[in-house]
Amino acid sequence: MTDVSGLSIGILGGTGDQGKGLARRFALAGLKVMIGSRSAERAREAAESIGGGATGAENAVVAAETDLVIVAVPYDGHKALLESLAPQLAGKIVVDCVNPLGFDKRGAYALPVEEGSAAQQAAAVLPDSRVVAAFHHVSAVVLLDPAVEKVDLDVLVLGDDREATDTVQALADVIPGVRGVYGGRLRNAFQVEALTANLISVNRRYKAHAGIRITDI
Amino acid sequence: MTDVSGLSIGILGGTGDQGKGLARRFALAGLKVMIGSRSAERAREAAESIGGGATGAENAVVAAETDLVIVAVPYDGHKALLESLAPQLAGKIVVDCVNPLGFDKRGAYALPVEEGSAAQQAAAVLPDSRVVAAFHHVSAVVLLDPAVEKVDLDVLVLGDDREATDTVQALADVIPGVRGVYGGRLRNAFQVEALTANLISVNRRYKAHAGIRITDI
Repeated sequence: MTDVSGLSIGILGGTGDQGKGLARRFALAGLKVMIGSRSAERAREAAESIGGGATGAENAVVAAETDLVIVAVPYDGHKALLESLAPQLAGKIVVDCVNPLGFDKRGAYALPVEEGSAAQQAAAVLPDSRVVAAFHHVSAVVLLDPAVEKVDLDVLVLGDDREATDTVQALADVIPGVRGVYGGRLRNAFQVEALTANLISVNRRYKAHAGIRITDI
Repeated sequence: MTDVSGLSIGILGGTGDQGKGLARRFALAGLKVMIGSRSAERAREAAESIGGGATGAENAVVAAETDLVIVAVPYDGHKALLESLAPQLAGKIVVDCVNPLGFDKRGAYALPVEEGSAAQQAAAVLPDSRVVAAFHHVSAVVLLDPAVEKVDLDVLVLGDDREATDTVQALADVIPGVRGVYGGRLRNAFQVEALTANLISVNRRYKAHAGIRITDI
């Protein structure tokens, strides 16, 4: 098992619910966490709100100063942000957990992505980074709920770099209850991102915070 | 809960592993099952091999004579077959479980579908049928294994017709261990079909017959 205890984790868009939820769980697990935002002040506020020694700074500072960087920004602006941070992210594992979704009165639906998926878009604009796709199906509500000690979820981890996917699986494993599961190559990321639309449909129908588990492994 | 015990189930392409596996489990559950194939003789052979009173006939006969029809044919030929059977399938629930996948030396990947997904393709060529998408992630090996009494799987059921999706959820529930879970509208079928490529990656990595469970419901 890869040891991730010494890694510092940066979370771009860490003031949003998904990013803040992940930041909280990683900080609780004892990892050094740095929340990024367009506004350093809002990043610091979010870091204070989750505790655990997390700090906050502008996205570019976080990208430069952390070992492994999670991208949890809205899909709008995803490409432009990563393009602007390519130098800081070079050589690093970059974990894309962006779900390109649209919403209308019938619910959520998957948006087409020219590069195939948000993760492949990240790989296209970050050719010198090690892009992994993961953490798409985490429920921000669950991650942020102090009453939830164990999170009932398998995190599908996709990528073409075995050492990088192993690292991100180990990172998922630090959240109690969560298991990082290898889920295929980056070219199969679209459907994992898009499945979030189905989980939103499940949540509506069953009044739940649905996740997935992989059986027989 | 919808009562499906009186329904006769037709399975187009029921001589393939996925269709035969489903046929076997439905017949074991006491449902009247009719296996369809291009060749009536091969359909009858498959029906005899699974037992449980299943019968076999040409696809067109099965489409005409059963109440609910499952489409388990290879993606090649899917559209043409359904176009040819539109009159027989009119008014019926048609359950598409086709996964449009390609394979190369790096594994499986999702094929683009002009209509959005195999299920939407079925809906486009069967405007008078009630198309539901389901049973994409069943493992034929598991369904056909007499040693497996309970199948550890949630079947995502997608569609725009509530009565039809309720019926198919109840149909999934007749297989011991399986739970039918509403998974959204037909416009979100692509990613459920395509996720089969990821499960194939999981199977390769973990030497498993992976399925999925939905948590928190």
